[in-house]
Amino acid sequence: MSEIAALFPLLLTLFSAQLLQALPQTYLQSTKHHGSEMEPQFTEKYFSQTLDHFNFNSMGNATFSQRYLITDKYWKKGYGPIFFYTGNEGNIWEFALNSGFITELAAQQRALVIFAEHRYYGKSLPFGNDSFNIPQVSLLTVEQALADYAIMITELKQQLAATDCPVIVFGGSYGGMLSVYMRLKYPNVVAGALAASAPILSTAGMGDSRQFFRDVTADFENIDPGCRDAVRGAFSQLKHLAEHQEYSRIQAEFSLCKPPSSPQDIHQLNGMLRNAFTLMAMLDYPYSTHFMGNMPANPVKVACETMMTGSDLLANLRKTAGIVYNATGVLTCFDMYSLYLDCADPTGCGLGFDSMAWDYQACTEIDLCYESNNVTDMFPPMSFTEKDRELYCSKRWAVIPRPDWLKTQFWGDALSTASNIIFSNGDLDPWANGGVRKSLSSSLIAVNISGGAHHLDLRGSNDADPESVITARKMEADLISQWVKMERTRLQQSL
Amino acid sequence: MSEIAALFPLLLTLFSAQLLQALPQTYLQSTKHHGSEMEPQFTEKYFSQTLDHFNFNSMGNATFSQRYLITDKYWKKGYGPIFFYTGNEGNIWEFALNSGFITELAAQQRALVIFAEHRYYGKSLPFGNDSFNIPQVSLLTVEQALADYAIMITELKQQLAATDCPVIVFGGSYGGMLSVYMRLKYPNVVAGALAASAPILSTAGMGDSRQFFRDVTADFENIDPGCRDAVRGAFSQLKHLAEHQEYSRIQAEFSLCKPPSSPQDIHQLNGMLRNAFTLMAMLDYPYSTHFMGNMPANPVKVACETMMTGSDLLANLRKTAGIVYNATGVLTCFDMYSLYLDCADPTGCGLGFDSMAWDYQACTEIDLCYESNNVTDMFPPMSFTEKDRELYCSKRWAVIPRPDWLKTQFWGDALSTASNIIFSNGDLDPWANGGVRKSLSSSLIAVNISGGAHHLDLRGSNDADPESVITARKMEADLISQWVKMERTRLQQSL
Repeated sequence: MSEIAALFPLLLTLFSAQLLQALPQTYLQSTKHHGSEMEPQFTEKYFSQTLDHFNFNSMGNATFSQRYLITDKYWKKGYGPIFFYTGNEGNIWEFALNSGFITELAAQQRALVIFAEHRYYGKSLPFGNDSFNIPQVSLLTVEQALADYAIMITELKQQLAATDCPVIVFGGSYGGMLSVYMRLKYPNVVAGALAASAPILSTAGMGDSRQFFRDVTADFENIDPGCRDAVRGAFSQLKHLAEHQEYSRIQAEFSLCKPPSSPQDIHQLNGMLRNAFTLMAMLDYPYSTHFMGNMPANPVKVACETMMTGSDLLANLRKTAGIVYNATGVLTCFDMYSLYLDCADPTGCGLGFDSMAWDYQACTEIDLCYESNNVTDMFPPMSFTEKDRELYCSKRWAVIPRPDWLKTQFWGDALSTASNIIFSNGDLDPWANGGVRKSLSSSLIAVNISGGAHHLDLRGSNDADPESVITARKMEADLISQWVKMERTRLQQSL
Repeated sequence: MSEIAALFPLLLTLFSAQLLQALPQTYLQSTKHHGSEMEPQFTEKYFSQTLDHFNFNSMGNATFSQRYLITDKYWKKGYGPIFFYTGNEGNIWEFALNSGFITELAAQQRALVIFAEHRYYGKSLPFGNDSFNIPQVSLLTVEQALADYAIMITELKQQLAATDCPVIVFGGSYGGMLSVYMRLKYPNVVAGALAASAPILSTAGMGDSRQFFRDVTADFENIDPGCRDAVRGAFSQLKHLAEHQEYSRIQAEFSLCKPPSSPQDIHQLNGMLRNAFTLMAMLDYPYSTHFMGNMPANPVKVACETMMTGSDLLANLRKTAGIVYNATGVLTCFDMYSLYLDCADPTGCGLGFDSMAWDYQACTEIDLCYESNNVTDMFPPMSFTEKDRELYCSKRWAVIPRPDWLKTQFWGDALSTASNIIFSNGDLDPWANGGVRKSLSSSLIAVNISGGAHHLDLRGSNDADPESVITARKMEADLISQWVKMERTRLQQSL
């Protein structure tokens, strides 16, 4: 993807991949992207999906075209399992091309592989360009997405003569949450779930609002406490300049296209800068990647080297942000409003259409009220309370968030009746501690990946992989193989 | 209730109890109704309920007033379990006053008792008299009702300082389906379910469309094959008269207020007559009852005695219908369009507002395509295919039913991952074979009640009870007591 990156250096669309949509699919399918990722030769298809599963009058039996990718390259037809990726907040190609483990495992276990795109993301826009108008946007909910997957799986199994084939769901991040929820709510449809880096607790309002940015900070601190201090020092200098309204100086120090002129602009700048650290912590893989933007290998280490070179902390901070926002070095200035979107997710909503969809979800069901406070983390104090969320969301989307809903609807931590779920997390990942870190039973298994970033285990194998992720993938493969066997027995008994 | 019955002889509102709504509550609470049913002195309350759980824009965070009945007469405060009746298609008082087992069990197990009214029934009309307009009616779905109960339980537990109290759900018929679904979808909220006479399979399209009326027929046949033959003979005579358009004769034979004048009228008459047998089979209790109308003790036996007296089959059929439609004998003629509503449920929709709600549910999620054919049953051939249903429902409610939805959404017979559910059924009940008749595991337990009609076990104990229901209630009490203990352990461990 280096050619594209050269043309579009700002391919950093957190949780999205707008530009990929414009690319010819042959390009995507024929280019080597990600180290040793396999090329499963996915076929892109569309499924006629019910538009509103929960209201028979609102749209009648109207449908929309839901995109999915499928490959039967490894499948033992009519017998092998189905590995189904429960697509999350972005173009489904982005996930398919960054989840090589699933296709590697399919090759081992002779599985059919399907990556389904989440409604309102990528090309699965129920109302085209009007999808983010009110009220059209209102059919974007977790429940609708789960029902989409349940129905898609059920119907595709019929179409493909695969009714006896066990289904395992896979997902990373919010996609991992959806995999968990599928197993909770539709165990008749899916036999097990691998939920990688799925923050099911923190997004249900069950976490500590300080946890996320504390854990981002820890990643940098663990490289060197001096790194954390340098970052804090740089933000402190920025704060000092802002308090004295030295806006031209700030523009110069941060290579901003326009000078800031208000506290609001400073807030935006702080948000953009903080987000660079968030992304580097999440995507702290041991090799360079092109997922959610371009990252060097070990970006946190690279950032700390940058932050700790010489004594010009502001210059270092600018350069560190540049690792994320100007990977190829072609930008001559930072347009902070186009590089970062302030939204209902303080960890970043990405850019483009997908960012609108995610903002809406963060305004309704998914609770992401995380704060930085400069005490438990190294960032400027930026609070985002339930009250802030409510104000923003009612203004932006004419909705009032329901902070208690997700916990009631998807069980919170009361998971003892569930089974066949792997909760994998990497300890570098700031999302990890928002998820399940301890096994809850012999079939609700927490896997910790030491030295792993955001759903590293879902990525294809790579020479630079730490031993921990190799072990994790092996354990995951074994468990999935067991679940498939158990489910096959169940399906045969019910014949 | 005999005074009321004298005033309102047509209190037969199947699955509803419109008239009860007009009664002063003190009357309801202070009158002896049902044999030995206890008087739990329920307090009637209203809960501020989210109007649309699945769409944040459609109604914002609008609420409606959902009625519930509550008694803490037996409750060991803050410790004893909560017995929660998942209200079904009717006025909640009707269920509370006919489910004495729940309060008897509450007295034994020191439980708080709550009967929650289903949205769009009784007084829980979200839009008052406009509730059955389109699109207002569209918020009437199973999923909305379940979310109502999940949220009501969660919030009431907070309000009542009962967060550590295990919750057991109870329900009969469709209410039993809801109890099952609560345990499937919200095991974080409910520890177990007693689902009495819950036809979860047949309503999900997994049954034989001939089963229901075949089993109605069997009840009469089991009294005496001659009874079945008499009924069939009477319908045959009616058919003969109709074919010769002897409409005045038909009016006279059946004491109709107006003569029939079309095949449509004959269809209506056949429907009304068949429905009388349906009700007597369902409500074939060993003592007289006032649930869904007034029934003598052992109505099927009474009907067969009526059918087999003398040789005037048409007069016998008229008199048999009179057991149901003219219990107190004050009617001088039958107005067949006001006594029976032809709707999307061939087993009867009842009358009044509640009948509209049930018709809508039968037009959307609940599949009740049952036929009589005069071969496997004793009734006139009256088909009701998916195609018939679709035509009717699109015309009546502007909806297209989704026959596969319930099976996908609520697991069909793929229940192996579920636990703590009792499926009780009486073998006199034509609904029984639409439900789960065999235990699926040590915690998915089928209870058969020999000689039991529609959810007899939920009724209060009565001297006329067969031994089978006494045994069944004992087993249910034991299981529920075990579930409560297990759940208490879980709740305490999670503290």
